[in-house]
Amino acid sequence: MDLDLALPDAARARRAELARALGESRALLFAGAAPPRNYAGAPYPFRASSHFLYFVGLPFERAVLSIEGDDHALYLEPPAPDDALWHGPAPSLDAIEAAVGCPVRPLAELAGAGAATLAAIDPATRARQEAALGRPVDPPSRGDEALADAVIALRLVHDEAAIAGLREAAEATVAAHLAGMAATRPGRREHHVRAAMEAAILERAMSTAYGSIVTVHGEVLHNHAHHHVLGAGDLLLADVGAESRGGWAGDVTRTWPVSGAFSPTQRAFYEVVLDAQARAIAAVRPGARYRDVHLAASHALAEGLVALGVLRGDPEELVADGVHALLFPHGVGHLLGLDVHDMEDLGDRAGYAPGRARSTQFGLSYLRLDRDLVPGMAVTIEPGLYQVDAILRDPHLARVAGDRLDRAALARFSDVRGIRIEDDVLVTDAGSEVLTAALPKAAADVEACVSA
Amino acid sequence: MDLDLALPDAARARRAELARALGESRALLFAGAAPPRNYAGAPYPFRASSHFLYFVGLPFERAVLSIEGDDHALYLEPPAPDDALWHGPAPSLDAIEAAVGCPVRPLAELAGAGAATLAAIDPATRARQEAALGRPVDPPSRGDEALADAVIALRLVHDEAAIAGLREAAEATVAAHLAGMAATRPGRREHHVRAAMEAAILERAMSTAYGSIVTVHGEVLHNHAHHHVLGAGDLLLADVGAESRGGWAGDVTRTWPVSGAFSPTQRAFYEVVLDAQARAIAAVRPGARYRDVHLAASHALAEGLVALGVLRGDPEELVADGVHALLFPHGVGHLLGLDVHDMEDLGDRAGYAPGRARSTQFGLSYLRLDRDLVPGMAVTIEPGLYQVDAILRDPHLARVAGDRLDRAALARFSDVRGIRIEDDVLVTDAGSEVLTAALPKAAADVEACVSA
Repeated sequence: MDLDLALPDAARARRAELARALGESRALLFAGAAPPRNYAGAPYPFRASSHFLYFVGLPFERAVLSIEGDDHALYLEPPAPDDALWHGPAPSLDAIEAAVGCPVRPLAELAGAGAATLAAIDPATRARQEAALGRPVDPPSRGDEALADAVIALRLVHDEAAIAGLREAAEATVAAHLAGMAATRPGRREHHVRAAMEAAILERAMSTAYGSIVTVHGEVLHNHAHHHVLGAGDLLLADVGAESRGGWAGDVTRTWPVSGAFSPTQRAFYEVVLDAQARAIAAVRPGARYRDVHLAASHALAEGLVALGVLRGDPEELVADGVHALLFPHGVGHLLGLDVHDMEDLGDRAGYAPGRARSTQFGLSYLRLDRDLVPGMAVTIEPGLYQVDAILRDPHLARVAGDRLDRAALARFSDVRGIRIEDDVLVTDAGSEVLTAALPKAAADVEACVSA
Repeated sequence: MDLDLALPDAARARRAELARALGESRALLFAGAAPPRNYAGAPYPFRASSHFLYFVGLPFERAVLSIEGDDHALYLEPPAPDDALWHGPAPSLDAIEAAVGCPVRPLAELAGAGAATLAAIDPATRARQEAALGRPVDPPSRGDEALADAVIALRLVHDEAAIAGLREAAEATVAAHLAGMAATRPGRREHHVRAAMEAAILERAMSTAYGSIVTVHGEVLHNHAHHHVLGAGDLLLADVGAESRGGWAGDVTRTWPVSGAFSPTQRAFYEVVLDAQARAIAAVRPGARYRDVHLAASHALAEGLVALGVLRGDPEELVADGVHALLFPHGVGHLLGLDVHDMEDLGDRAGYAPGRARSTQFGLSYLRLDRDLVPGMAVTIEPGLYQVDAILRDPHLARVAGDRLDRAALARFSDVRGIRIEDDVLVTDAGSEVLTAALPKAAADVEACVSA
């Protein structure tokens, strides 16, 4: 581990805030452990729990952070006898205490009865939690819920160190997309472009924040296949983000023409998505409700599709009835932070304000965030248009659309399977700042990057 | 999933062999599932259990293979309602049956009482195994041990399809190392070289077979830090391997001078390791005991170190007493197959022939393999020399070495921290074939690749 990445002041301030929110009660946050890939000695790369990372700053495997009033301590496993041989000299206790900004104690001394915790995502850590606390941790007990709410309140609003981490991730994410555009050639395969993009991330000593989507089948929303050949007439959709060295996520999508030039039909749809993204970003400001940002994008998409003759009717009514969702089935974005869908391990408790719940309407039901925005929140803004067979053939949705969807007109856009344009946006006092603004997205600019 | 990668004939033949070995009893092999990285929706890339992959050929997540006499079936989870939207159209049942070569049934119909299985490495799959079988699966019951032995007997000796997979992995691994040598420049960081190497693997739609080691601190055997700057006088040790699209591992190490030219002291140690590797590879042939291959390498290293004045005494005696292990603390290699340490999930049951057990002597105790070689086995051959502080300062080992280690002479080689040279070797009827022979390793050839 590179102790130089530590930000002890930020971590200490976050712990103090949490302690204040918790009052008398004690919290234990578990770092987790790398799951095995093939066998115990061949694990996946370790990724510490984001809750742990937020309050500690560095990924100590199997460690536990204890917070109880002013008494904070990091419980660590001592190095195994062979560790110096296989893993190199361990940093000194003093160096770790300086990097973390709180005392370090041996894990064996951890006694957790009566503490609150957040259920780990991996069963092995869950079992260690239950052993330490002497009770089940899933479903959460009442103390756990108070802890969850306190952590959410802090992690929702990014401090300076967090914003610096998001900027670092954004910079690498932009570089990855530029590398992907430059590596695109008809006849190559998707995984060739993906390799160029991920190399730009690895070069910066970072990892991807999530499984990369690099596909000429953008209509498959979470497409993790990368074997297709890039056809000269295809659009390539790349949803790739870097994770900064401190664990902060970037999450960006661009869609570009493999040939370096959009066809007229591709360009027409592209401009509709771009306009929807611009209008949604313009709606991001303190006090705005995120569902309204989603609806602004939806409205712009409906308007654009009406102008192209693909939808018929009043855009407001089309959105209210969810007709636009046949071509834009997902939400316009989500929270961004140490997780790409920040705090999704806590379910809608993080993404939805108290008293709000997911809609049951197709499309809106996939919206992951519905809070009022405040300065310091980071969100993605990622409208798209897709021709998904399973949706377009769905009898219920076909009835909802009726003749308001002109299928003959849509068929003229058959060389558009999926387009998405996504940026990372920080809510500021003045409105918003696009953290990934350095990456071109105007059609002509994108074309120039591909052909460069 | 790319069903085009299927090899139904090979998988069918392997299943038939296993059924024959099992006689009346029934075996269930579980594919496992991708563990979550941040939260359930953000998993690590799925990697199926190697046992499952061996007999099925394709990585169906959460699937279970059942083998009982001639009755083979693959139990699959049906797609979720939203899957067509998020993950694209699922392949048809017919297409899956053709790709796998056996009937497919819904996972819900799996009844596992009385069957044998191999304990999954992840607790979530372990829990599903215990639910299906109605009993604990760890530690293994007697039926599980018979299944383990039957699987080991098959997987030890690679069939044609397996060898083709190892060759595919070897080709990509060689390309990765060439890319790494070409990307090396003083002043760059380790992760820059690592990015170039992994990009060559990703470009081929493959993944790394294990966590890459790319380090100027080769004396840390499992060094997964990549942040050091490459100094002009440093050696860079890269232990990087590709995993073929079907899951077969490559595992290669090269050590090269950052400047493109070995110093005289680096070159002297390098030649000793290269000679040891050549002699160990020459010892690989049907009937040879792998521990003797390890001892051949050890003897060559001891001889070379005596010639350089670093060790004193009779090489045979130095090896018998383990004095060479102060500079060569690990084993000369291991089984190679679907896992980089093949079947290490089964412990020494796979690597050690019945009746053989690990030595307790420092160095030899780390030897992962002690079987008599037969045609079709694949092993790595990877001797090395390291100056590890924790070893050189160990009082017990210092007593073992006494004045047979000339520390003043060793100090003259202080610009060598760690050198390892590793290739993948297939045991053939005629002796052996180096699968990764296309990658240069003579000192002058390596220098030429770095400076190219």
